[in-house]
Amino acid sequence: MSSSRQVISIDNLNEFSVGALRNCGVGEADARVTAEILTTTDAWGVFTHGNKALRGYLRRLRGGGLAPHGTPSVVTEGPGWALVDGDSSLGMVTSTYAMEVALGKARATGLGYVGVRNSCHFGAAGAYAAQAARSGFIGVAMANDIPSVASPGSRGAVTGSNPLAYAVPAGKHRPLMLDMSIATVAGGKVYAARERGEPIPATWLINDHGQPTDDPQAYPEHSTLTPAAGHKGFGLALLIETLAGALTGAAMTTQVGSWLAGDPSIATHHGAAFLALDVAVIGPDLPARIESLIDEIHAAPRAVGVDRLYVPGEKEWENLERSRKDGIALPADVVASIREAATISDMDLDRYFTTP
Amino acid sequence: MSSSRQVISIDNLNEFSVGALRNCGVGEADARVTAEILTTTDAWGVFTHGNKALRGYLRRLRGGGLAPHGTPSVVTEGPGWALVDGDSSLGMVTSTYAMEVALGKARATGLGYVGVRNSCHFGAAGAYAAQAARSGFIGVAMANDIPSVASPGSRGAVTGSNPLAYAVPAGKHRPLMLDMSIATVAGGKVYAARERGEPIPATWLINDHGQPTDDPQAYPEHSTLTPAAGHKGFGLALLIETLAGALTGAAMTTQVGSWLAGDPSIATHHGAAFLALDVAVIGPDLPARIESLIDEIHAAPRAVGVDRLYVPGEKEWENLERSRKDGIALPADVVASIREAATISDMDLDRYFTTP
Repeated sequence: MSSSRQVISIDNLNEFSVGALRNCGVGEADARVTAEILTTTDAWGVFTHGNKALRGYLRRLRGGGLAPHGTPSVVTEGPGWALVDGDSSLGMVTSTYAMEVALGKARATGLGYVGVRNSCHFGAAGAYAAQAARSGFIGVAMANDIPSVASPGSRGAVTGSNPLAYAVPAGKHRPLMLDMSIATVAGGKVYAARERGEPIPATWLINDHGQPTDDPQAYPEHSTLTPAAGHKGFGLALLIETLAGALTGAAMTTQVGSWLAGDPSIATHHGAAFLALDVAVIGPDLPARIESLIDEIHAAPRAVGVDRLYVPGEKEWENLERSRKDGIALPADVVASIREAATISDMDLDRYFTTP
Repeated sequence: MSSSRQVISIDNLNEFSVGALRNCGVGEADARVTAEILTTTDAWGVFTHGNKALRGYLRRLRGGGLAPHGTPSVVTEGPGWALVDGDSSLGMVTSTYAMEVALGKARATGLGYVGVRNSCHFGAAGAYAAQAARSGFIGVAMANDIPSVASPGSRGAVTGSNPLAYAVPAGKHRPLMLDMSIATVAGGKVYAARERGEPIPATWLINDHGQPTDDPQAYPEHSTLTPAAGHKGFGLALLIETLAGALTGAAMTTQVGSWLAGDPSIATHHGAAFLALDVAVIGPDLPARIESLIDEIHAAPRAVGVDRLYVPGEKEWENLERSRKDGIALPADVVASIREAATISDMDLDRYFTTP
């Protein structure tokens, strides 16, 4: 374990996160929902979307762009669907509520769609997909965001890096769980190469002329992320924009606010979408069939030098087990960010760190 | 237009296709449904999935692996979903029926899911997504297939090249329409490079050791397609396998039959899945919002040397317009394939070709 990492137990990180949110005016229940999602995300090893983001949410709670006592509610609905207004509450609060509504619709009709408006950054999309899978449902979660990704042929950002996640019950295995963005790589990978002074593959970014570049130095001012697999990632971005933005009444593209860099007194108006399918009713054999499929993939011939084949989510579930046993080894950038979160929320972070 | 191409009007190609299917025992209505999908796909310029495939379907109709008078039907259902057994009828017949069932469910509850088993290759997934959009719905279509694509770290094929398509009503514009496979590129592109004796990008294939290769010569015997964007394409393949295979009771991975190379007397047992969302009920503003989004993308700054930015489906809709006016310019490989189809079905193809 690198000495730049700081180990903290899941419980302690969770309690810190709850306390920080409580100190910024969030009620106990909403603080617990939010902290558990952020902390589980860190325990999965997905540090870009865990408590590293807490700082940004706290600033918005202090600034008024997030409503500490906002209450998401259903504004229109039918037998299998609903549209939820997030009332500018935390994205984790609105999204957890929305997936619960989707599960209720799925119990009634077999599947449910819930679209969300007036939300904010919702952390890791996988958290809501996993929420559905915990109840035995297939879950899908997605969200829109400010433009940060080019389209094929564009010179700058056209769509958000719109996340898409799903989770599927898998019998004796932990759920299949994919959480991807439609960009070739996350901006964080470009920043990391920039800090190391290393070139990047020429497929990650385009420059100010819209042409491929292997230079991470100009990111993000003078270069833009590319869509994953070109027109495929761009096409998926627009499907997500359709279900999370256009269908929900949420803001879209340039009308969305930046949850991190934008004025913290103004709501971001993010959109999101959640789908759930009732496995027990539609296809009760599904978990056993997915279990066999995973076994088959695990047993497939491996490339030279590869020890093991993974299915989506497997590394995250193993990280969670390890985090439960050994605590979470937070990278330095995450520690720095949650130190700022502690300052914003008048929390004593050091009280929560355990000795490795 | 290359001299190796052969021009045929949409009507003539459609009538040839209807006649060929009729001659192999398919009823008038099913032949018309199938021919229209195959011919529209050619008119879109998606020649890999149009009447080029007719030959393979006719062989199966003659061989018994496809039932000329098969009748797809709902076997289980709930308010918002149904599972359809294709009864080994043509994939186009079963899929058109299944999407109609999904539209009916969506009219009742807001959204519908229909899973299909005992189907066969269904042509272009986009055809069924477009079917939904024509009725004002958001449509999604997907299918599984025999393994042809590696997973990250595997040495051979693990999943199908599982297609995924969607279509979205777009106001004054033609629908947004994406039709993608989860492979980096279609096998057809590798064959084309092989025929030209040219190397390919090292991202398209892995060799027998599971390592990247730029040599198309060993495909497909000793090399395998890679998943688009690595773990993202692989993850999407498993989502499609979940909804089109595991949930429907269809065959999966190695249990699926090869519609083209397999024994034509044995059914392939492909699975498919269809989703529809009722725009008019859930979000009546959607077409206008998508129209604006498309206008915004069209007006975005372009890379140096790029004349125009496209949205998904735009090239296909323009090809359709051109095909209506000037006929379809069939590539030589398609002409060769439909000549074989004519032989199998005792049709006189030359009668249908017009003078360019």
